[in-house]
Parts: sequence; structure tokens; C-alpha cells
Amino acid sequence: MDITALFNLSYGLYIIGAKDGERNVGCVVNTVSQATSSPVTVTVCINKDNYTNACIKKTKAFAVSILSEKANSGIFGIFGFSSSRDRDKFAEIPFGLTPAGLPYVNESVTGWLQCRVIDFVDNFTHTVFIAEVQDAENLAKEPPMTYAYYHSVVKGKTPPKASSYAAETVRTAPAEGKYVCDICGYEYPGGKEEFELLSDDYVCPICGAPKNTFILKSNEK
Amino acid sequence: MDITALFNLSYGLYIIGAKDGERNVGCVVNTVSQATSSPVTVTVCINKDNYTNACIKKTKAFAVSILSEKANSGIFGIFGFSSSRDRDKFAEIPFGLTPAGLPYVNESVTGWLQCRVIDFVDNFTHTVFIAEVQDAENLAKEPPMTYAYYHSVVKGKTPPKASSYAAETVRTAPAEGKYVCDICGYEYPGGKEEFELLSDDYVCPICGAPKNTFILKSNEK
Repeated sequence: MDITALFNLSYGLYIIGAKDGERNVGCVVNTVSQATSSPVTVTVCINKDNYTNACIKKTKAFAVSILSEKANSGIFGIFGFSSSRDRDKFAEIPFGLTPAGLPYVNESVTGWLQCRVIDFVDNFTHTVFIAEVQDAENLAKEPPMTYAYYHSVVKGKTPPKASSYAAETVRTAPAEGKYVCDICGYEYPGGKEEFELLSDDYVCPICGAPKNTFILKSNEK
Repeated sequence: MDITALFNLSYGLYIIGAKDGERNVGCVVNTVSQATSSPVTVTVCINKDNYTNACIKKTKAFAVSILSEKANSGIFGIFGFSSSRDRDKFAEIPFGLTPAGLPYVNESVTGWLQCRVIDFVDNFTHTVFIAEVQDAENLAKEPPMTYAYYHSVVKGKTPPKASSYAAETVRTAPAEGKYVCDICGYEYPGGKEEFELLSDDYVCPICGAPKNTFILKSNEK
């Protein structure tokens, strides 16, 4: 089986927001699809190890924020490379609340959907949620960010809990003579010398890790 | 609820191939997503009225052909605007068979996946299939066709059994002074006079309907 065939499936990028009691929780996903148009329902796959997954199973409610191409790469660090168990992710970004009180990202998104879970299926590492869209707002005319854009323009990496993570480890050829973030895999686009001249307070634009977490990839085995 | 918010969800375009006894059957979908990476599973939504849906429920097997940007618009007419009940769709295009004997499109695709259904959920008008990918081949380096590309470049319309059909009826502003195919909604890109000068054997590039099925949209209500 040639796993690289799956790299040509197309996706967008979305922040899922949910509630843990009074707390806001959330994570990044690439697997939101409209399933039916009457009524309007969507499907989304979320890793069972994601704290947000357990919260959605309890509350049956979540919001989808549809990221635009303008989304700052930092949002992937916050929502993709850390857990809502121990981080108030929405406190770090502009956010709003849907009529049902679910948190959505309020900057660099094309809009949000408010969803009510009507069914779910546990499928190995992930849960497939089926949900009715109860409310939605279209906020901006910016193009939505696609997964292809995230990889090719933002130079983003796939969070380890993503549906397509194993694929990513094949997709990413080892960088040579490049500094790479040891937390999230972000590759600094400039050369070795340019990276070393950066000030000591440089942080990874994807996950926020400090400069000294970057390691130099060499040609040597 | 502003249904237009859902227009910014991102998708690819795929031909689903399956077997009805010895016959090849298939349809077009936009909702293939990788669900897990270990094992590799995918989800796909298919309308319950699609003949292909019933065949997959019986055989538990289907192939996914991932269309590339080079896909000829005629393939959407064959697979999106007619039924495998009464048309041998694969006979009209180059196709191959996966190791399990499932038909895949063999031109203008980036590759194919051979899938075995492990679960499904009926959800209103559609079925959400969850399937393990048993085999896959990556065929071409052409970019995959996205749903956005189909709408903006191919000028394609959404088949009536698609997951996002209701959305489409809102998306498509009524054309004014343009000839539109009454079968599939394809809008002839040139003006009224140019269309009328076309030879009588002109057929709709999307669904193959003859010239006389086109109707002129006017400003009048």
C-alpha cells in the first residue's frame, strides 16, 4: 500500500471549541465535512486522547471556527501542540461565543458553525461525530485555509493527534542543514547561519517553543 | 442561520467505484476524509438514493479515485448527473481494477484507494461509511482537484444528491442573459449571441445534454 496516495485528499483547517463546565476548551482538526443539507449536518473526526473529545461527548455541543488563509501560525501551536487539560487556549486569542455559549475564534476565520451532536462512532484512535448545525455566521470574505496551503505556504506540521499523522511522518523528508523545532517539527525557512544570528528570544512561530529547542539536521546518519 | 458559512468548508472531488454483481457502478462525492492513521481508515458520505450506496452496503467494498485538476468536466456529467441503475458509467472512461476487482478511474486522477467498510451510520438523506484502506496507489503528480477549483475554474455545479446541494442553490446567483443547462445547471460562459451561433450538435460539457436543453435566463421575474 502506497500511503502517499492519501496525501492528495483535500481538507480545510478548523478550530473546534467546546465547554468543560465553565471552561473553554478546543483543538485543531482538518476533517470537518458537510454530511447532509436537509437538515444541515456535519461530520468531524477528533482523537480520543484529545481533552476536547471527552468534553464534547459529555455536552453534545461544539463550535467549528473555519480558519482563513490569514490565520497566524501561532494558533496551530496553541490548538495543535498543547492540551486544553492544562492550558486555557481561548484566553490567548480573540474569541467570541455562539448563542449557545460555545467559544469560536474571532480573528482570521471565515465564519463559525454551532453544532449539536446527534450520533458518534468510536473508530480506533478517533471518534467520528455526526452533528446538526444549529446556527452559523459568515464573517469574512478571506479564502479559507486549506490543509495544502498550511503545508506549502505556512510550512506547518501535522499535530501528533491528527487523523493524518502517520502520513505526515512519510511526507516530511528529513531537512538537511536546517534548524527544526524539536517540539512541533517546524523547519526554519532560512539557512543555518541566518538562524544562529536570530536573537535569543526567538520562539517557534508554530508552537511557541524557545530558540534552544531547535536542532540542526545534518546529512550525517 | 447563515448557510453561506458552510461554503468555506474545503473538500476534494472523488469518484467512488463499487460492484453490483459483475457490473461496475459509481458516483461522484466530495466528502472523503482520512479518519485515522493506524490503521488507515477513511470516512465518506453517500446519498441513500444513490444506487452505489446500496451496492456498497451489500458488498462492503469500494474504491476511491482521487480526481486531479486535469479531470475532464464530462466525468462529472457521467458520475454526478446520471444513475448507475441504467448507465454503465465506467464503460465510458478509461478505468482500471484494484487487486480486489473494484473499478477506479485511470485518467486525470492522482491515485486510488481500495476500501473495506467496517461500519456505517445512516444519517438522514446520506450514509456515513467508515472504511479501512486496504491498498492504495499514487499515480500522478498533478494537483488534486478541490471543490473550490471545480466551482471556480471548471464552473461545475453540485449534483442534486450531494451532501452540500441545498447550499449550492443559494451559492449560485441566477444568471442573467446567459444560457444555462436545464439538466445540470451548467452556465455557458459566453454571451447569448455566441451561444446561439453554436452548431446544433453542441452538448453540455458537464452532463452531455443537447443544446436544446439550454434555457436563456433573463432579468425578468
